Amino acid sequence: MTPGPTPVPPEVLLAQGSPIVYHRGPGFGRVLREVTEGLQWIYQTKNDIVTFTCSGTGGMESAVVNCFSPGDRVLVVSVGNFGTRFKKICEAYGLDVKLLEYEWGKTAKAADVQAALEPGIKGVLIQHSETSTGVINDIEPIAAVVREHPALFVVDSISGVGGAPLKVDEWGIDVAIGGSQKALMGSPGIAFIAVSEAAWAAHANATLPRFYWDWTAVKKAYERPEPETPYTPAVHLYMGLAEAIGLLREEGLENAYKRHAVLSRATKAGVQALGLDLFGEDVERAVCVTAVKSPEGVDGDKLTALIRAKYGIIFAPGQDVLKGKIFRIGHVGYFERADILQALAVLELALEELGYPVKRGDAVAAAEEVFTQAG
Amino acid sequence: MTPGPTPVPPEVLLAQGSPIVYHRGPGFGRVLREVTEGLQWIYQTKNDIVTFTCSGTGGMESAVVNCFSPGDRVLVVSVGNFGTRFKKICEAYGLDVKLLEYEWGKTAKAADVQAALEPGIKGVLIQHSETSTGVINDIEPIAAVVREHPALFVVDSISGVGGAPLKVDEWGIDVAIGGSQKALMGSPGIAFIAVSEAAWAAHANATLPRFYWDWTAVKKAYERPEPETPYTPAVHLYMGLAEAIGLLREEGLENAYKRHAVLSRATKAGVQALGLDLFGEDVERAVCVTAVKSPEGVDGDKLTALIRAKYGIIFAPGQDVLKGKIFRIGHVGYFERADILQALAVLELALEELGYPVKRGDAVAAAEEVFTQAG
Repeated sequence: MTPGPTPVPPEVLLAQGSPIVYHRGPGFGRVLREVTEGLQWIYQTKNDIVTFTCSGTGGMESAVVNCFSPGDRVLVVSVGNFGTRFKKICEAYGLDVKLLEYEWGKTAKAADVQAALEPGIKGVLIQHSETSTGVINDIEPIAAVVREHPALFVVDSISGVGGAPLKVDEWGIDVAIGGSQKALMGSPGIAFIAVSEAAWAAHANATLPRFYWDWTAVKKAYERPEPETPYTPAVHLYMGLAEAIGLLREEGLENAYKRHAVLSRATKAGVQALGLDLFGEDVERAVCVTAVKSPEGVDGDKLTALIRAKYGIIFAPGQDVLKGKIFRIGHVGYFERADILQALAVLELALEELGYPVKRGDAVAAAEEVFTQAG
Repeated sequence: MTPGPTPVPPEVLLAQGSPIVYHRGPGFGRVLREVTEGLQWIYQTKNDIVTFTCSGTGGMESAVVNCFSPGDRVLVVSVGNFGTRFKKICEAYGLDVKLLEYEWGKTAKAADVQAALEPGIKGVLIQHSETSTGVINDIEPIAAVVREHPALFVVDSISGVGGAPLKVDEWGIDVAIGGSQKALMGSPGIAFIAVSEAAWAAHANATLPRFYWDWTAVKKAYERPEPETPYTPAVHLYMGLAEAIGLLREEGLENAYKRHAVLSRATKAGVQALGLDLFGEDVERAVCVTAVKSPEGVDGDKLTALIRAKYGIIFAPGQDVLKGKIFRIGHVGYFERADILQALAVLELALEELGYPVKRGDAVAAAEEVFTQAG
């Protein structure tokens, strides 16, 4: 029950345990075409997709080094750990970072972004789903504000895409970054980026140094008669991702969004039924990860350690400033209703063991009510 | 029969098709410890190992950005396509590259490196096994020359390590770069680097920009009570690589070297028995890939295409300046004697079909002789 890597469906495991296809030629070409078209469908975009063998962080770095030049001024909107990471990446490459920073748990506001968007800002970088706090930023109105300004809009949706709506073309997102290992139910190791025409135009003039991350090299390799990557890809992970996308296609995007929303509502109802408080703003939008305040007298780290050791279920502890103060239940990716019921049941037992008063079954019952209502 | 990614043994496929372990904590910690210790064994080194989720090229880039500063003068020794790649990476980051370039097919000479090593050169970058031509550079005497000079010695052994001897500590290699997908029999997607004390010292003062590739971040994450990577790794590929290293441990390193040498000799004897000429210098050292000159009247690209289409066996064509002029038979990694016999047999049929006079069975018989002699 961590916010990624999430469990991997057997169909995907089977694909990545199958004999390898050669990475030059029709075998891998077919896989890459399937992955690319599937990602365009999930992103709801006609923009180009580039992919890399790396973690989501590599995808974030690729966005920075492909779009900007040394000294460029950018606005980083941070609501948690991954916002801080965007800032660090930008600073590592000598960008001039203006930081719009919120307290962890808050969501970003379009009006604040508008106020911060002074002339000369070349890019706005933000998280869609901020994994460290579980909050999901309301990207649509923020995109509307950024569109009125000549800055690229760069959205890290690594733990969001496929779990929460993200309409790249309709909203006007220039660079959308995703990862294989969250809502997409693939194994970790592939980052993918949707690149708008404006982002390609910026890229053409961007002078930050890059080699492995270079988008032009990827695009050129994709345009061969049988699409390839410029350097040897993690072939098996692409084979698995193609399978995972197939599963999402069967389910349907709206159904996947709905599944995530129902699992989220049930989780939240369950923990609240135990008298626990949710952490973060706009919790009804936090469909990928539920962050819960550790109750008085219970250390969140001890709680997650106990649940892991005794029941083999992994909740994520709080990071950084929230260490011990919250715990996080991920429900993005390959999770179903029974997983939530199980997680809430072991939470009841563990809380009781740590001395927090629990009426056994309350959390589970509350979740069951949500599922029954959802049909 | 390409020089990578090579086939993946069933044990490795099974591991990477198994349920995923969480990347923070004891499950992945055990995998990462196994991988790290195994790689130290294969590299014959006590140096630190850092790993990345990426292709071998990413590993090469990590060496450049972690060891050098803008404007640093480096000596790139190039004997083919991957030498050119080292040059391009260095230039992308604004290094001052002195190029010692050999005609494709030649091997590098220690005396030439010595002559090129002028004061002020901060690093020497070279391939161990140059996949594009099949040649393997004699690293030991070159290392001896570089050791007399205050430059870091950076060796790309992506297609060499595990297939041909590489004694990192004994020879004095500061940075050795390898990949999961060649002699190690893993799936592609992990690069690993052995880093000497001198390389760490250089790294501490190196100012090229980096984030994902930063060695310090990797080292810090490895030093946690349960070793981790700083960003989500390709967990399944690490699980597979641990299994692959286990297979190599069972075989023994010297036996693996011997296996590669015997397969190489048999392949070379086979193609020569058909009257074909080997390509490249010091062919007896070229134990990972055999490069063969396309005979008069036969286009190497057509030959490899025919073999792939009609027999489902993939030989690698020539790259760049050698396109059509050579073809390459890889025998690095998960190959055994029967694979070589099969490859030579289909080569006989395909050459005959393209009008080259073949006495059927000659190539296979010559290889059989080598195997019989080897016992």
